[in-house]
Amino acid sequence: MSTPSPTAVETLKSTLGPGGWTQDASEIAPWLTEWRNKWQGHTPLMLTPRTTAEVAAAVTICSEHGIAVVPQGGDTGLVGGQIPYGEVLLSTRKLRAVRDVTPLDDAMTVEAGVTLLEAQQHATAAGRMFPLSLAAEGSATIGGVISTNAGGTAVIRYGVMRDLVLGIEAVMPDGQVFNGLKRLRKDNTGYDLKQLLIGAEGTLGIVTAATLKLFPIMRSRATAMVGLDSAHAAIELLARAKAETGGGVEAFELMKRIGMEFVLKHIPDTREPLDTTPPWYVLIELVSGEPGAAEAGLERLLADAFEAGLINDAAIAQNQTQRADFWKVREEQSAAQRPEGGGWKHDVSVPVSRIADFLDEATAAVERFHPGARVGAFGHVGDGNMHYDVLCPPGADLKAFLARWEEGSQIVHDVVARYDGSISAEHGLGRLKTDEARRYKSPLEIATMRAVRQAIDPKRIMNPAVLF
Amino acid sequence: MSTPSPTAVETLKSTLGPGGWTQDASEIAPWLTEWRNKWQGHTPLMLTPRTTAEVAAAVTICSEHGIAVVPQGGDTGLVGGQIPYGEVLLSTRKLRAVRDVTPLDDAMTVEAGVTLLEAQQHATAAGRMFPLSLAAEGSATIGGVISTNAGGTAVIRYGVMRDLVLGIEAVMPDGQVFNGLKRLRKDNTGYDLKQLLIGAEGTLGIVTAATLKLFPIMRSRATAMVGLDSAHAAIELLARAKAETGGGVEAFELMKRIGMEFVLKHIPDTREPLDTTPPWYVLIELVSGEPGAAEAGLERLLADAFEAGLINDAAIAQNQTQRADFWKVREEQSAAQRPEGGGWKHDVSVPVSRIADFLDEATAAVERFHPGARVGAFGHVGDGNMHYDVLCPPGADLKAFLARWEEGSQIVHDVVARYDGSISAEHGLGRLKTDEARRYKSPLEIATMRAVRQAIDPKRIMNPAVLF
Repeated sequence: MSTPSPTAVETLKSTLGPGGWTQDASEIAPWLTEWRNKWQGHTPLMLTPRTTAEVAAAVTICSEHGIAVVPQGGDTGLVGGQIPYGEVLLSTRKLRAVRDVTPLDDAMTVEAGVTLLEAQQHATAAGRMFPLSLAAEGSATIGGVISTNAGGTAVIRYGVMRDLVLGIEAVMPDGQVFNGLKRLRKDNTGYDLKQLLIGAEGTLGIVTAATLKLFPIMRSRATAMVGLDSAHAAIELLARAKAETGGGVEAFELMKRIGMEFVLKHIPDTREPLDTTPPWYVLIELVSGEPGAAEAGLERLLADAFEAGLINDAAIAQNQTQRADFWKVREEQSAAQRPEGGGWKHDVSVPVSRIADFLDEATAAVERFHPGARVGAFGHVGDGNMHYDVLCPPGADLKAFLARWEEGSQIVHDVVARYDGSISAEHGLGRLKTDEARRYKSPLEIATMRAVRQAIDPKRIMNPAVLF
Repeated sequence: MSTPSPTAVETLKSTLGPGGWTQDASEIAPWLTEWRNKWQGHTPLMLTPRTTAEVAAAVTICSEHGIAVVPQGGDTGLVGGQIPYGEVLLSTRKLRAVRDVTPLDDAMTVEAGVTLLEAQQHATAAGRMFPLSLAAEGSATIGGVISTNAGGTAVIRYGVMRDLVLGIEAVMPDGQVFNGLKRLRKDNTGYDLKQLLIGAEGTLGIVTAATLKLFPIMRSRATAMVGLDSAHAAIELLARAKAETGGGVEAFELMKRIGMEFVLKHIPDTREPLDTTPPWYVLIELVSGEPGAAEAGLERLLADAFEAGLINDAAIAQNQTQRADFWKVREEQSAAQRPEGGGWKHDVSVPVSRIADFLDEATAAVERFHPGARVGAFGHVGDGNMHYDVLCPPGADLKAFLARWEEGSQIVHDVVARYDGSISAEHGLGRLKTDEARRYKSPLEIATMRAVRQAIDPKRIMNPAVLF
């Protein structure tokens, strides 16, 4: 990839005008890394267009000059897909308009730079709900959430971002604007081009706005922390919960005791959620459109599960504070690992029915490979998605341990592949995992992806180092 | 398009062997037309492979010889996408295996030739539910339902077919097998190729099997027929129903009095669903995971709607027979038009909030264009989708009326376009509407679709006359 010529850089700067670009190193610096400090990029120029027309103008110039572009939203990605290494950085976070909110259509159209949290708030203000929720929602933007097809904690009921997008506006790699901002629930008139842009990690164009699906606000909600002897029991509890509530499970998060211990040790204002200390925990949340039904359903479910010997402890949140406490010990699982020293991180999925077997087999393989390593699995088990993190043995040489990350990850990923799983359930491939993914994708899949990319971005200027 | 050479035909026949092909005109005849008799195709050869490997072998030969192929499922499509005009006809209906049903994953994998009804039955036998339902489900196959991204009556709760597919196996245009039969809920490892095949009308490959999402069986269900003064009132009722049930609306079907009259007049064993004869009807069905909740919710909803003056009559089905009666007058809306003489048919969608305005404006435009024409709108108004049919004035010259179909349709479709709608909500474009769609798609969209198609099927052998 060549460095953009001074002429091209000047054209970009004069086209976007003051406030539309920066070359100030201190302004750019925060956007060249991310919170885990795994990446440290560099760029000759950061563009901050304020309108779709400005994005289009910038991309047109980049296309004409063959300048590579890395699009960036809230910079919360964990696989380096948003970090430039010499490319021009194009941030969409100044695209801030809420174009419309239409409760009768259960739809709203927001620009790419609106944060996920703001989108949720706009929906709520209109008497509706936007269900996608994840830890970084205060910073993550709609453009980024679409480009990475983000997941989060409510996927079991509402699906991933792909399932929540009705329409997309995007600037294509040649600078043309694709206006696909439909509010339709049904439209069978050729290939659904927005599906290509969702999850494409900025390689097929830059999402500038989207029309999102809204949902009714639920009239009852009940949350419990449950203690179990095994992940197998959790899977059985999940199946019962889904069957007995008719799809009323909104969250079903599995945690191991070791992860709970890290949280209690390192995160202030946390407490044991149960009187006992079981080897496994599930945070379950039920919702219903019927007032009182979620609470009643949860009590019945847990009573039956006790009787069947499936669970051995449970606490139902009695108020919002207790609910927030339960969620806090879940949400801090990742942060609580840091003071324990780094680890090999994995964001994997397998079929739900196989998750317990996967955990057994992967953990046995990891322990053979690196005796004493601590496995801190937690995650959205209702979707078959585990954040499977392998931490350094206590007191061991962290640097030596981290040096084995790649080899260790291959062991985990090979088990994932045997279980027909995915090596990136929700974070995408980015710069981190594209090479690793080549080991598991068929040549046909890779060739087809490359052909589609070549068809849409023949100059390969859009996030060229990411994906195939 | 050239006729396949005798050598190529012989190679195809010997490769598939006895039972794998036919040139018998009487065997082929039923598959060259469809129930509305709008199409009458022809083919030199009909292939009926029994396995994915046989489909792959056949397509490989077609690719090598540049032979065009029209894939066909249950032959229930209404836009001619499955009818060959000189192409080889490849039927997937002998791909009949149910490969697995995994209740713990809420998933099952079936081959393309399994009918939609059979798929529903396999799900039920496993204690789960497959929600896609449409009038032709006894004949329509999973392969066809995926390739046309079918909708049906439960879209408001469960989405279209695109939302119900976890994985796909397909034979690509060069004969290679794409094995994408994942049971995963989350997988962000590059472009989601199955999304391209869904709704592609057989132009990017032949779907041979699919892994489908299953759902819990609901524990309560309540159905009512409601009488209203206007479509505007129906939209308001819909918004209330969604908000008050937290997503418990499984069907919300609008009908006009004129359509009800056709049904009562022409379809045996039907009766007035209400004591009154309102200008508009809504068939509403609520479901819940909580026993009794759907019934209670429906009674409350209707009582409140009466009080608010939104509806003026309603009958709640007291048993399965009454429920079946309500559904029958809905499902026979299309068939009951036939004895009234033909009409200009439209399968359109607009944003839900605008459907009443659309109906007013389109009907005014149609009446200006052809005074006396009768508009028989009915459909899945919960999805913004109406089957907007314009029937010949009583006693008028049918042939002369039908001669104005194209012109009349353009008037309807222009109104659809002004309302940001779709000219094919659920039937696809096929041979019928591809040209018409060119009037409304942007050059960018058409060029992008063509580029993607060229990338995946460079010889354009897959259903070449369909789509762009």
